[in-house]
Amino acid sequence: MHSDAALRYFEDFSAGETFTTPEIEVTTAEIIEFARLYDPQHFHTDPETAVDSVFGRHVGSGWHTAALTMRLWFDHGPPVAGGLVGLGVDELRWGPLHGGDRIHVVGEVVETVPSRSGAPRGVVRLRLRTLTHRGTEAQHMLSAILVPSRAAAG
Amino acid sequence: MHSDAALRYFEDFSAGETFTTPEIEVTTAEIIEFARLYDPQHFHTDPETAVDSVFGRHVGSGWHTAALTMRLWFDHGPPVAGGLVGLGVDELRWGPLHGGDRIHVVGEVVETVPSRSGAPRGVVRLRLRTLTHRGTEAQHMLSAILVPSRAAAG
Repeated sequence: MHSDAALRYFEDFSAGETFTTPEIEVTTAEIIEFARLYDPQHFHTDPETAVDSVFGRHVGSGWHTAALTMRLWFDHGPPVAGGLVGLGVDELRWGPLHGGDRIHVVGEVVETVPSRSGAPRGVVRLRLRTLTHRGTEAQHMLSAILVPSRAAAG
Repeated sequence: MHSDAALRYFEDFSAGETFTTPEIEVTTAEIIEFARLYDPQHFHTDPETAVDSVFGRHVGSGWHTAALTMRLWFDHGPPVAGGLVGLGVDELRWGPLHGGDRIHVVGEVVETVPSRSGAPRGVVRLRLRTLTHRGTEAQHMLSAILVPSRAAAG
């Protein structure tokens, strides 16, 4: 959890700014646990038979990568007033994530768009890249969050 | 798990086709459990303080909706040869998901694109809508999957 002192408002973001999170390790057990609940395809749940799949080895669900990216960004990305209120994602691309991979997220502010109605808020567009210690991209995402202006804080 | 007998290949999909899954209920406990692991923002983890958030009440993480959608589609969508190999998502939009909501997925084939190189496979573009029993859209997604042709089955 972030302290309120460091909370960022819409005005505090500017295009081009980047943020880099620390690295976490993803285990094969975690990959299997997530997959059993949400994406129980054999190339996600069974390292043995995964070698015969199109991936050629055991890989995590892309939705697991997305969830882990959310957690890394929540824990270590810039603390945002009102929370990370996602408006949506415009692009989501995946590369393989394997057990034992260490991943971190690099976020870049692509654009900041004030409310057209003059309301005290705006949209911050972010590019979040989830990178492995192998130098590969496990996920690439363009997302938009709704951020209140300082004026909204009253 | 689907039986091999019903496996669909690239040729078996055609634009305009729709698929509707059965409904599942999402509990507040599940919403909190997912959020604690992957998106521990108070409006996802704490129904009491969520009333003071921008959402005005407890809501699930959009990434939870995405994961539940994957599971519904895996369990009840058309069985695809080689598995559901996602190339990526081009649009992902969320509406509120609350504990007690029952959701189902309606998938529509938007487009089928044969391999340009003549390889025995193609891309199937899908629109997946995750609908609540309240008649609202909890998620809207445009996604693309890679599907082998019958020729690839040998």
